[in-house]
Amino acid sequence: MTHGHNQGGDAALQALRPQIQDLRMENIADLAMRARELGGVIPLWYGEGDMVTPAYIRDAAKAALDEGVTFYIPDMRGHRPLIEALSDYQSRLHGVPFGLDRSTVTPGGMQAVHLAMTAIADAGRNVVFPEPQWPNIANAIHVSGAEPRGVPMDYRDGRWVLDLDRLFDACDARTRAIVYSSPSNPQGWVAREDEIRALLEFGRRRGIWIIADEVYARMYFAGPAAPSILPLAEPEDLVMTVNTLSKGWAMTGWRVGWLTHPPSLSARFGALVQYMTSGTAGVLQAGAAAALRDGEGTVAEIRARAEAGIAATYDILDGHPAVELPARPEGGMYVFFRLRGVEDARDACRLVLERARVGLAPGHLFGPTGRSFLRMCILRETTGLREALSRMADALR
Amino acid sequence: MTHGHNQGGDAALQALRPQIQDLRMENIADLAMRARELGGVIPLWYGEGDMVTPAYIRDAAKAALDEGVTFYIPDMRGHRPLIEALSDYQSRLHGVPFGLDRSTVTPGGMQAVHLAMTAIADAGRNVVFPEPQWPNIANAIHVSGAEPRGVPMDYRDGRWVLDLDRLFDACDARTRAIVYSSPSNPQGWVAREDEIRALLEFGRRRGIWIIADEVYARMYFAGPAAPSILPLAEPEDLVMTVNTLSKGWAMTGWRVGWLTHPPSLSARFGALVQYMTSGTAGVLQAGAAAALRDGEGTVAEIRARAEAGIAATYDILDGHPAVELPARPEGGMYVFFRLRGVEDARDACRLVLERARVGLAPGHLFGPTGRSFLRMCILRETTGLREALSRMADALR
Repeated sequence: MTHGHNQGGDAALQALRPQIQDLRMENIADLAMRARELGGVIPLWYGEGDMVTPAYIRDAAKAALDEGVTFYIPDMRGHRPLIEALSDYQSRLHGVPFGLDRSTVTPGGMQAVHLAMTAIADAGRNVVFPEPQWPNIANAIHVSGAEPRGVPMDYRDGRWVLDLDRLFDACDARTRAIVYSSPSNPQGWVAREDEIRALLEFGRRRGIWIIADEVYARMYFAGPAAPSILPLAEPEDLVMTVNTLSKGWAMTGWRVGWLTHPPSLSARFGALVQYMTSGTAGVLQAGAAAALRDGEGTVAEIRARAEAGIAATYDILDGHPAVELPARPEGGMYVFFRLRGVEDARDACRLVLERARVGLAPGHLFGPTGRSFLRMCILRETTGLREALSRMADALR
Repeated sequence: MTHGHNQGGDAALQALRPQIQDLRMENIADLAMRARELGGVIPLWYGEGDMVTPAYIRDAAKAALDEGVTFYIPDMRGHRPLIEALSDYQSRLHGVPFGLDRSTVTPGGMQAVHLAMTAIADAGRNVVFPEPQWPNIANAIHVSGAEPRGVPMDYRDGRWVLDLDRLFDACDARTRAIVYSSPSNPQGWVAREDEIRALLEFGRRRGIWIIADEVYARMYFAGPAAPSILPLAEPEDLVMTVNTLSKGWAMTGWRVGWLTHPPSLSARFGALVQYMTSGTAGVLQAGAAAALRDGEGTVAEIRARAEAGIAATYDILDGHPAVELPARPEGGMYVFFRLRGVEDARDACRLVLERARVGLAPGHLFGPTGRSFLRMCILRETTGLREALSRMADALR
């Protein structure tokens, strides 16, 4: 069968939405896959540690499999035990009551971002965010049809600073939301309570959603959790937060996250889940509920690992003539640094990959402001991380 | 804290996309949840049997949990073992080779529909489909911003007939796709090969995607699988198929599906998955791979259950004075029937629920053409189904 109108796949490409035709194809996963052929690479490019999910969480999922939790979960917003565990967890964490109608379970934190964008953003609108920023935020906005509008943060004396006025000036009548991450990926910047209050007040005044990506909330080094917008906002404020079990509980591969939203929208988000995914597997939700109920030890262990990883990084690389380290990150699981004299992070990445066999993520993926930086995930068992850091220190000398 | 501008949640609702503000909120899940307070209801409203996922599939997931498959799966299109199992399965089923670049794994068949719509549909476009149709198709189109354009099928002498000319006449310059389900939900109608060829030719001529929902492909009663568009199309045709492990392998609650698409789009779909869900849990993919590799016995067992369920239905209800049964469905797992003299299916549903304690889905959910019909899922262990049917027969006398 031959048909003249199919020219090597161009026809299929051209039959997609324009936003999908010009979708950004380069990402970290892609980079990691291309580097597979190189042997012995220590992979520090993903936002993922090397700790297998703890046994009690896996056991809860196995028990659910044994019990036959293999049917649809009728409540599209989440299985009741997980919805209750989320309510308890958030009430406990934030010190104010969170009802069962505040959060919707999603298959992954990424899906929570996409769900939020599907609810509010479309062509002719824009969504504003400080950058450098986790690239999936800008890409999720782009997929929605809205314009992703990144606003540079300032890098001064090794510290990232958010210029709120510049962020607000980037908003116009077509702005649907401001999205920020705190602790931020890749910088490890943490929004102060006064900054969050200013964002909240601006959103109220202008009818703009404030969406906080709080997936690294528990990986904060000056307290049990980074300041959250949730206890500062009223339930019906135009506020959503994105969260996930991935980072704080070593559950990246489980793909379980949640979106916290005004309670008045809970039925609507349930319907949206129905039409987007029809919910999250019950077996995974059983594991997630166990993690939220019994996982404070895990959270503490992972935070300690992140702190140890940062300490090892500064121990080995601080003062290295080729390496420009920032001030220590306040939260998260990354160090976002530069090589002196290398302006394009892709060159720096290639250098580190080839000479030291260490995989880092190039900063241009996180926005133009990050283009000379490298993101290194430091959430590794300390010996392996020290090995990677020493290889880098040697190779760059 | 009080702020005068939040009036009982209206502010939040009005800050959503118009398409989400007028999202259809009534659905089967909602109905089932409301009926929970009634005791002893035999639930035949969902598209789900009562068979727990077979042990060999659950065991594969448990083994993955034991092995620590709890990290990100780098290939966003699916874990290699599942991608290979899909390639083998589709090659075997269709008798033509399917490469590793033809299918993208999604967290559920619903997400495969949403992924397809996100790739092609947006405001100013429309998507055409025959109805009655599974409501989530129209709702997924609506969520994309495009206009869902249902075209009535004809119901003649107890048979559903697709008028292709009417379907084609509903397409215009703004039409992105025709979506059809075969075997169809709720009617159990199956597209003939000549009909599929006509759809394919029309799509080629007009540059319109033909999207086949083939989730009930293996629940076909005149052969091992219902006729598929895949072996009739060239790989680069504007053709996609939606599929899932849910129905044929008793895995509704696993939320694992797949989208088959032109191979030239595989990297693009990988990127889209990255920004929409970041993939499907590896543990679930391990179960899905086991199902596709070793599941032909399960598929045969479930098909036999569906056939037995249909036989029981006609055994008990055929000739009942209050019941108007259609011709036997050619595939799927439903009987879509009417009560004589009851024009509004919601009344019929209420009647059957209250008098017989049997839960059915009202036909208006499937489009205006179905408004006098009731959908009954017959994929139940035969004794339980016969009990439900006998209760209905008695209550309606």
